[in-house]
Amino acid sequence: MSETELDHRSAQSAAVTEWKDGEVRHHDDFLVGEEPLLIQVGAEALTVTMRTPGDDFDLAAGFLFTEGIIHSRNEIAYLKWADGAEIDQQAVQVELKAGAVARRPAPQRNFVANSGCGMCGKTSLADVYTAGITKPNPDFRINPNVLCGLPEATRSAQTLFGKTGGLHAAALFDSAGKLLTLREDVGRHNAVDKVVGWALLQGLVPLSQCVLMASGRGGFEIIQKSLMAGIPVLASVSAASSLAVELAREMGMTLVGFLRGRRFVVYCGEERLGIRE
Amino acid sequence: MSETELDHRSAQSAAVTEWKDGEVRHHDDFLVGEEPLLIQVGAEALTVTMRTPGDDFDLAAGFLFTEGIIHSRNEIAYLKWADGAEIDQQAVQVELKAGAVARRPAPQRNFVANSGCGMCGKTSLADVYTAGITKPNPDFRINPNVLCGLPEATRSAQTLFGKTGGLHAAALFDSAGKLLTLREDVGRHNAVDKVVGWALLQGLVPLSQCVLMASGRGGFEIIQKSLMAGIPVLASVSAASSLAVELAREMGMTLVGFLRGRRFVVYCGEERLGIRE
Repeated sequence: MSETELDHRSAQSAAVTEWKDGEVRHHDDFLVGEEPLLIQVGAEALTVTMRTPGDDFDLAAGFLFTEGIIHSRNEIAYLKWADGAEIDQQAVQVELKAGAVARRPAPQRNFVANSGCGMCGKTSLADVYTAGITKPNPDFRINPNVLCGLPEATRSAQTLFGKTGGLHAAALFDSAGKLLTLREDVGRHNAVDKVVGWALLQGLVPLSQCVLMASGRGGFEIIQKSLMAGIPVLASVSAASSLAVELAREMGMTLVGFLRGRRFVVYCGEERLGIRE
Repeated sequence: MSETELDHRSAQSAAVTEWKDGEVRHHDDFLVGEEPLLIQVGAEALTVTMRTPGDDFDLAAGFLFTEGIIHSRNEIAYLKWADGAEIDQQAVQVELKAGAVARRPAPQRNFVANSGCGMCGKTSLADVYTAGITKPNPDFRINPNVLCGLPEATRSAQTLFGKTGGLHAAALFDSAGKLLTLREDVGRHNAVDKVVGWALLQGLVPLSQCVLMASGRGGFEIIQKSLMAGIPVLASVSAASSLAVELAREMGMTLVGFLRGRRFVVYCGEERLGIRE
């Protein structure tokens, strides 16, 4: 697929009707592209994700890694577009190296647990969800003033958001606030998987010197995926959930929410921001 | 579980640190509750969803229905808390009536397709995703001025949002703008499933005389779930995706986005709002 074709599919033009205080107007608008992608491990279908086309190899690699199905990029032999894809069907095939075995995914939102629930017999959630996670770098530091600049830096780099007004972003920054990469997607989890997949394929994981800025709320799965990638600080413009905070605390991650203007809330890991009093 | 216990778990208190222009303050804040729920059909695990505790029977019934696993409430014998749940483990068990058979879920975001992809061999997405969907009521009408009042009516009824600042809502209204029910959840899909599940168990499905107001964007899966419930008009304060619009157009649904103040965008189905010129 060419870059131009992908650009075309990541934001698609459509005729819409606008109603404004009784005035009706017809015009063209851009819609954020949303299409299904099948991710295969070898010839076997693993999952279908509804995503914004683009960076699909990063997405596939990131998904496999953050879900614990592979544990390093060294397990990947190559990625390719799957053969024999039907019309309207896109599929990325991840070929593992000889000897590498895809692990069973953890039970999670919308994962169909065909052969019983992986949670049974465990005595706490942490036992279930922290498999494969190690505590992120305790020595990483970022200045609160640098942190305050990240939402604006993220928004400025979001080319698709300005066009369509409707999609999520995940952006990776270093401690000086330098943007390393940004991905946009109709799905919050996909945006994170694309960023982590990019880093994984670049050999940059674990991301022990990075902050991840995520649009939307700091939910449990975003924390889990970030921890899989070794990210010590996660920041979002919105609220965090109870389970997200529980997991971040248990794993020693710094979790920041409501990052807007010159204000934010820290749920845990204040020491990385130098603000524990 | 008592109502009080659920209230406690849907919004949970936590100590946080607030940073505001260099000033540091410690206080307690409410976090939106997020906990895993296992949904079983009989003794078999179907899925684990991360949800805000509360209305879990509605959620389970709604999930089964909007995913096409059951086709009517008559297939349900009863719902109960599953036996032998472990600590930290909540599980709802849906017992089907004799003769009712759970259908295989459609391939979808994060559904693990263990036995191949249901999309192969199909020639268009519509073939895949419209199984079980019929076109919603073409005669339903709602006045644009009534529509403009729905976001405020939704927000006013959101008791948890005010407390935690961080969760989604789905609200069902009639053509006069009267609120029929509202559910809040950390997940957008869960909020819709809880509303549809409530209606299903009340015997109100298909919801052919209703508008669904959804927070967040009008994504493909929200449209699909709404169509399964026979809802003719879906409105959201945010953008719709390309595939959402494609599906809504194909199925003759009215799809409204960017519903804010006295302005909105209609992607299709303008006739139900009386504004096609």
